[in-house]
Amino acid sequence: MRALTVIPGKANSAAVVEMPEPPASDGPILVRTLAVGVCGTDAEIVSGQYGWPPRGEERLILGHESLGEVEAAPAGSGFSAGDRVVGIVRRPDPVPCIACGIGEWDMCRNGRYTERGIKERHGYASERFRIEPDFLVKLAPGLDALGVLLEPASVVAKAWEHIERIGRRARWEPATVLVTGAGPIGLLAALLGRQRGLDVHVLDRVTEGPKPQLVRNLGGTYHSGPMAGIGIHPDIVVECTGAASLVMDATLQLAADGIVCLAGVSSGGRRISVDVGMLNRDMVLDNNVMFGTVNANLRHYQAAAEALAKADQAWLGRLISRREPLGRWQRALTRQPDDIKVVIDFTL
Amino acid sequence: MRALTVIPGKANSAAVVEMPEPPASDGPILVRTLAVGVCGTDAEIVSGQYGWPPRGEERLILGHESLGEVEAAPAGSGFSAGDRVVGIVRRPDPVPCIACGIGEWDMCRNGRYTERGIKERHGYASERFRIEPDFLVKLAPGLDALGVLLEPASVVAKAWEHIERIGRRARWEPATVLVTGAGPIGLLAALLGRQRGLDVHVLDRVTEGPKPQLVRNLGGTYHSGPMAGIGIHPDIVVECTGAASLVMDATLQLAADGIVCLAGVSSGGRRISVDVGMLNRDMVLDNNVMFGTVNANLRHYQAAAEALAKADQAWLGRLISRREPLGRWQRALTRQPDDIKVVIDFTL
Repeated sequence: MRALTVIPGKANSAAVVEMPEPPASDGPILVRTLAVGVCGTDAEIVSGQYGWPPRGEERLILGHESLGEVEAAPAGSGFSAGDRVVGIVRRPDPVPCIACGIGEWDMCRNGRYTERGIKERHGYASERFRIEPDFLVKLAPGLDALGVLLEPASVVAKAWEHIERIGRRARWEPATVLVTGAGPIGLLAALLGRQRGLDVHVLDRVTEGPKPQLVRNLGGTYHSGPMAGIGIHPDIVVECTGAASLVMDATLQLAADGIVCLAGVSSGGRRISVDVGMLNRDMVLDNNVMFGTVNANLRHYQAAAEALAKADQAWLGRLISRREPLGRWQRALTRQPDDIKVVIDFTL
Repeated sequence: MRALTVIPGKANSAAVVEMPEPPASDGPILVRTLAVGVCGTDAEIVSGQYGWPPRGEERLILGHESLGEVEAAPAGSGFSAGDRVVGIVRRPDPVPCIACGIGEWDMCRNGRYTERGIKERHGYASERFRIEPDFLVKLAPGLDALGVLLEPASVVAKAWEHIERIGRRARWEPATVLVTGAGPIGLLAALLGRQRGLDVHVLDRVTEGPKPQLVRNLGGTYHSGPMAGIGIHPDIVVECTGAASLVMDATLQLAADGIVCLAGVSSGGRRISVDVGMLNRDMVLDNNVMFGTVNANLRHYQAAAEALAKADQAWLGRLISRREPLGRWQRALTRQPDDIKVVIDFTL
């Protein structure tokens, strides 16, 4: 079968190649791939900066944002042919840590997890994949092709769950959220913020293209320009850019008892001059929290599926700005000005 | 009566002056002051950098770490003459915010709180003070003169409560805590860490004097030198120095799912070059949390009173490195090499 692969650690090694059919050891459920979303992590892997192949192999099949249709599933697995499904990314080690042991593999404490399409496990960017039923999520019927947004939405659902759980340390009724970055993660964070009844603000660099309107259609307020100019002190910041200066500005802008959720992975080597004394003083005197969040567990996929199901489907559809066939994977991985989520569509 | 006062905002204005007897409007309970601890906030106020006088007055009576003996209390107040007591520092605004309204004034959201000895309310560094019963904590009999440690211990009890509450966002069983700074807050944080059964490490600059032995007597490990040399990846860091570079180093050293509690207030204007990109990436991929904490509410004073009561009283006594009479307040406010907690003793 054809698959989009890469030699991890080696730039310019990505290629669509013929790979063996998925082995039975990947799980009893056979899925035909419909679409795979691409994101910053894929770009990092393709550039040779991240990613690990399965043990004993040279190439890694890419793709962790999946959408597929079950081709064959054993009786009693909870799945049957025709189901629309999304595969979960992370797997705990066979000897799980305390978090993995209760299914909170997103919080893995020893780093011995694997990840489909990222770390030591083939991803979903192949014509077919096999998977374990415990790591497969069935989509509500109406969601259809938008199900490819489930994985990024699961990351956002985890971010919101942790904001709420951390917020329970004291009496706190947040009213305002500022999302920095209007990419797919930022827009989904804004969606889940609106679903919680919050006053949603989104800050991004661009002033044109679909992003401002997408935010307004949610009932949110779109801002571009410097953080200090937005005129609010948000209770929550969901930082989705990884831009070093925004992380600091967001914290200084936060209301008392506020929470900054770092949901964007930035590269190292971005050294800036920071008044850490002021940042520290501000966080202490205001009881502020800053936390990082990565990945998602089954609970978050389920929460994300509910969030997507109750969203405006036309609005969600506009998050998918391009669909490229597998043969044009290079175009899919090359950012264009108005891109939000780009998808490799295996049905084209 | 004599009181240690300052004109807030004016350096070198501190003086022991004659002040009116405490007004009935301060509360129905009359307390004779036994001791007042001094801390970095007092030094900041005396240097003119912090603090606000009561409305309509020029001078502020200093002192927020109190210990006193009730002289007179109305029947039914829950207090009676001879009780050893400590006054709570913060008061909510008469129109409370959502946190203050349920007694979590340490999490005040609108900043309209007042604080005895700091912000718009006279402190406890006078021969007598009056207070409301709801803001007074009675000490267990045995604690005696060590009760002056209750206020700093309450700040530490709040820090630990928030570490534990934030930690509940996921399954987490922390084993190791690193405390940075072996001053009174750091040593009390180490004590409460040991009381929780944790492996306690304390990092400070000094290699001599009482601090290393105090840590060892707790069953903890004492370190000096650079953070990277301590050889552990702690689950928890309680940062008590406010030193900018330590805040960053602590976060990079943290284990997955780890929590950095910022409990030291640093000055602004400490600009350093930071790889914020790396810090952000590390916090995201490791699900790390950094939070600031200030002040304490009644629940934390009660937790602190329990913690102090079950501690080794001889060990606690060694935290009070000097006692100076009111007339020598200037000596009390001048740091000497082996100082830990210095107390102005009103009985001398």
